[in-house]
Formats: sequence, C-alpha cells, structure tokens
Amino acid sequence: MDFFRDNVRRMAGYTPGEQPQDKAYVKLNTNENPYPPSPKVLAAIRAAADERLRLYPDPMGVAFRRKVAEVCGFDVDEVIAGQGGDDILNLVVRACADKGDKVASIYPSYTLYDTLAELQEAEFVRVDEVAELADAGARVSFVCNPNAPTGVWTEIAALDELAPKLDGLLVIDEAYADFAEETCLPLVRNHANVIVVRTLSKSFSLAGMRLGYGVSQRANIEQLFKVKESYNLDRISLAAAEAALGDLEHAQANVRKVIATRERLQAELDAIGLAYYPSRSNFVFFRIENAAAVKQALMDRGVLVRYLRLPGYEDSLRVSIGSDAEIDRFLSELKEIT
Amino acid sequence: MDFFRDNVRRMAGYTPGEQPQDKAYVKLNTNENPYPPSPKVLAAIRAAADERLRLYPDPMGVAFRRKVAEVCGFDVDEVIAGQGGDDILNLVVRACADKGDKVASIYPSYTLYDTLAELQEAEFVRVDEVAELADAGARVSFVCNPNAPTGVWTEIAALDELAPKLDGLLVIDEAYADFAEETCLPLVRNHANVIVVRTLSKSFSLAGMRLGYGVSQRANIEQLFKVKESYNLDRISLAAAEAALGDLEHAQANVRKVIATRERLQAELDAIGLAYYPSRSNFVFFRIENAAAVKQALMDRGVLVRYLRLPGYEDSLRVSIGSDAEIDRFLSELKEIT
Repeated sequence: MDFFRDNVRRMAGYTPGEQPQDKAYVKLNTNENPYPPSPKVLAAIRAAADERLRLYPDPMGVAFRRKVAEVCGFDVDEVIAGQGGDDILNLVVRACADKGDKVASIYPSYTLYDTLAELQEAEFVRVDEVAELADAGARVSFVCNPNAPTGVWTEIAALDELAPKLDGLLVIDEAYADFAEETCLPLVRNHANVIVVRTLSKSFSLAGMRLGYGVSQRANIEQLFKVKESYNLDRISLAAAEAALGDLEHAQANVRKVIATRERLQAELDAIGLAYYPSRSNFVFFRIENAAAVKQALMDRGVLVRYLRLPGYEDSLRVSIGSDAEIDRFLSELKEIT
Repeated sequence: MDFFRDNVRRMAGYTPGEQPQDKAYVKLNTNENPYPPSPKVLAAIRAAADERLRLYPDPMGVAFRRKVAEVCGFDVDEVIAGQGGDDILNLVVRACADKGDKVASIYPSYTLYDTLAELQEAEFVRVDEVAELADAGARVSFVCNPNAPTGVWTEIAALDELAPKLDGLLVIDEAYADFAEETCLPLVRNHANVIVVRTLSKSFSLAGMRLGYGVSQRANIEQLFKVKESYNLDRISLAAAEAALGDLEHAQANVRKVIATRERLQAELDAIGLAYYPSRSNFVFFRIENAAAVKQALMDRGVLVRYLRLPGYEDSLRVSIGSDAEIDRFLSELKEIT
C-alpha cells in the first residue's frame, strides 16, 4: 500500500546544515550569530516560564506583531508572525501556488524555495538575474536579499521596478538584510504584491527560538492567516520575540561587529588570492579548488563550513562570520591546508 | 490582481476558542488543564534560556523523540515530534491528500480536519459511525479518540478491525486519551497504516508550549519528515518536552484529579436533568435549550464555555473540566441562569 502522495515520495526533503556532536567545533556552517542574544530575552523567557504554560498562547501573536509594527513603522494588521522566516515562506507558497503553477527564484539561492514548490507540485523556475523574474510568469517569485549563499545585495530600485511587472507575489526574503544595513520594507507601501520576510535568527542571535515575521499589505496578511497553524508560536517564543525587538541596540551592536569581521575576512581572502562574492550578509561564499576536500579537511581540524554541492558552484564554500577569534582560526587552518 | 489560490480565498480558516482579555474569567472553553505543569518543566526552560539560543535547535528533535520512544515503548525512528499535535495532523494531510482525494472523519469531530482537507482541495467526507469509515474511500481517515467535542471513546477493538479495511492512513488523534486511561498505541505494531498522534497540551498542562508527536511505523515517519519544517521545534520547547516526559507522575496525578472532577460534574448534570455524552475526556458536551444564550449568559457572569455552532448540535455546549472550585462556580451560575 502506498499512503503518500507521489511527489512526497519522490522528494528528498530539505537538508539542514550538519550539526555533529562528536566534539566541539568552530561552527561556521549555518550562519548563526557568534554573539549571544540580549540578556533581556533570556530574562523574558525565564519570567514566562510559569504555570500559565497550561494555557494556550495568543493565536494572533498580537504582542509580537505590535512590536514589529512599531519597529518597522507599519500597522499590526500588516504583519504576520511565524515560527521562523521559514514558516512565512511556507505559508506563502501554500497559499498561492497550485499544482502546475510556477514558483521562481534566481539561482543559486535558498534551496528551501525549491522544496516548498515541490511540495505543492508547482513548477520551480530558476533564472540567472533578478530582472528575468519579470518574464517567468510565476505566482510566487523569491528574492533573497542579500542572497544566500552568495551574500550579494540586489538594489532596492531594481525590486521596485520588478514588482509591478509580476502577476504574482514578490517575496523579498530579508533573513540577512540587517547585515546589509538596508531594507526593502518601504516597497510594501507601494506595491500590493510585495511581502518582506524577516527573521530574528541571525541579527538577533535567536536561531534557537524560531522567530520570524512577514510584512505586506493587509489583504495579503489576511489570506496568510487562514493557512497558518492556529497557534504557531508558543508563549515562551512570543515573550522572547517581544523582548528581542525591545532591545534593538543589542542586536545592532552585534551586527556591527559581524560586519567588521566580514570586511576583515574579505580583505584576508583578497590577500590569499581567493575569489569571493562581495558579501552584504553574515557569510562569505568563496571559490576554492577541491572545495569538498577542503571542507572535509577543515572539519577534521575542527572547523565547520558549508559545502552546498550546487550544480555550477561545486568549487565554492560558504563560511559564516564568527567571532574574530573564530575567523582567525578558520583562516589559519585554511592556509595550512592549501 | 489575485495572488492567492481560490480555495484559500474561499476558506474561513479554523477559529480557535475565544480568549477575551477584558477581565478574569473561569476559563472552561478550550480544554486546558486547570493544574500547572511539572516544576521540572519550568526549571528545564529556565536552564535552557542561555546564550546557546543563538544556535539552531536539533532539526531531528532526537532528545524529545527518544524520550517518547522510551515512554511509549517504541523506537526513535517510529516517532516524529511536532509543534503541537496539530503540526502532525497537518503533516499527514499535506503528505497524503492530493487535490480531489478524500479525507474522512466521523461527525462531529475536531473541525481542524476539515480545514486541513480544504487547504489541500481534498474532499472532506463525514460519516456517522467509525465503522462507516471503511467504505469512505479516504486517503486519510481521522478518529479523534476520545472524540472532540463529545468525549466519546471508540473501543480499541473497533479501530483494530477498521485499520485493515482502509486503503489510506488511519490517524488516531489521542489528544485526550490520557483522560481515558487507554491508548491505541499498540495498534501501530499491527497495522502499517496507523499513526497515533498525541499532545502534551492537555494531560501535561502545556497548551502554551505547543508540543506533540506522532507514532507510526518507520516508513511512514520517514515520509512525514520530508514535509515538516526543518526546525519545527525550538531549543526551549525541546527542553520542556524532554522534562515533561521525564515527570509522568506529575501529569498522571493531575489526570486523576481531572477525571474525578469530570465524574462529579456528570453526576451533577444527571441531578439537574441535563443530557450529556458520557465523557472519557477532559470536557463534557451537554445538551441545553437556548445553548447560545446560555453560553452568553455564562460569559456575562465570568464563566467561559464553548458553543461550537455545529449543524445538528446547536443545542449543545462543551465545558472543559476545570478545578473543583471552577466546576462548582460553573454549576452554580448555570443553575441560576436556567
């Protein structure tokens, strides 16, 4: 007997970055922030750990959404809260893409877009340049900005031009935008089809909490609410999110440190003579011969980086920006190997 | 422009029970446990609130799943962890039901089954008796056991007979099974198509944490893993789940108190002369004239119960089992109104 849908059977599923537990690694493979979250977040979590956990959380996530609205300059009805940015990406594809519809993204980009399209039996269309999305005829077009795994920034003006040319939604995935110190949020005001997706995983050092949100015009948010799990954020997560957005200074200070380390790393790669995409993110995607072997050698020496095996990019590795000490360690191991 | 799928536009979405914030209510409308979760859970949450929150959680949820496996007598590969039982129900429908496929349940039952089918554009089939599911031709058949909102228990033998007659999966939703002090988990061994879904929301007093799991044969769990969000449980949730399952005594003691109060409530309803379904759950569904008005009058007096507006059951209210004091308050207000 075959209980599952054919497309699910065929799927490989999304592969998260490896998290080996055999020893302590310098972990530069999943774009986590090297600095701790705000002490106010930890205090809020501890304070929320009381007997009210017997009660359901607020299904509308109002306190979190109100804080987002305040910080981003939108109305609470223009915000949906999610279990990480991934939750919002999933909602959008599920709400918009029917079997046979097109879902598009530039290539390479975040591989989850592909997985989500596959789940809906939508046709996934890859283009080389953002401007080509205009002709892809997609119900949902993804632009990860800055892009992953390249770290490359797409100018806001280019997306402002693209949005009205699309028949479907333009999802601007700003998971890493705080490290570019720019945002496409203002485009939401001008375009009925733009949704900006953000996360607290990276700049707020909360990958472990799974917190994200989407900002779009009210009519879109209303539809997305129908598709989300009723209680997609628990009481502790909601408290953590509110506290995190209440301490922007903490996140901003960490972002500045990460950016400084990124610039230093790029200068070092220049010095070694390794080519890379100029990054506006918290990682750098660089070219190196025998990338798979180098990744393994780094791992043997206790440094994890990401080898993505992307067709056409087999000679590249992605290194997340760690602390200065971690990046120094990465560089010294890399020099010894090559 | 119309960015969303037609079926999503048409959907009303699932309506969670109301959670008015205007004053303190005796809250008997969403089947929450009146007793607090284990102090060990609260301690585990506080202990996990540290700087490791900057790191992603374990995408496989191994520690939680291992604990489930140990408690239920299964292998870790026969368990999937979810953000509440709802997460697992959602995964099953998404993984198994194609557009036009049938999804079946007895009526009345948990209304989320209907919503999930609608999202997949599956045809939702309602039957009156569990045995009739055998002829419904569904890819996914749901049996909530004990059922919601009636609290009625379906004998394990009846499900043991039903499973081999189905071409698709049989999902036994045991959200409330701890209050029946029975479980269909052993059926997983005998039937390749059975999945048992459980939650920590009710018997473990953790509705606020969104923790659930599914138990099924390995081949099914493998497929469900492909559909789940990569990191569907955060670090704090995973720590809470492990701690909760490590203190079964705490939950069992609360379950016994709830059962005693339920039996007392049913005796009182007998005394007043109100008909109800004999409940094996943590709520009682009773018949009363002018149910909507009674619900409102109770609310005005500070007592929340659930009026579900189910066609054919317009004369019924569902009251969750609170503490003895809460149920006494409910009964005295009810007597004054009627």
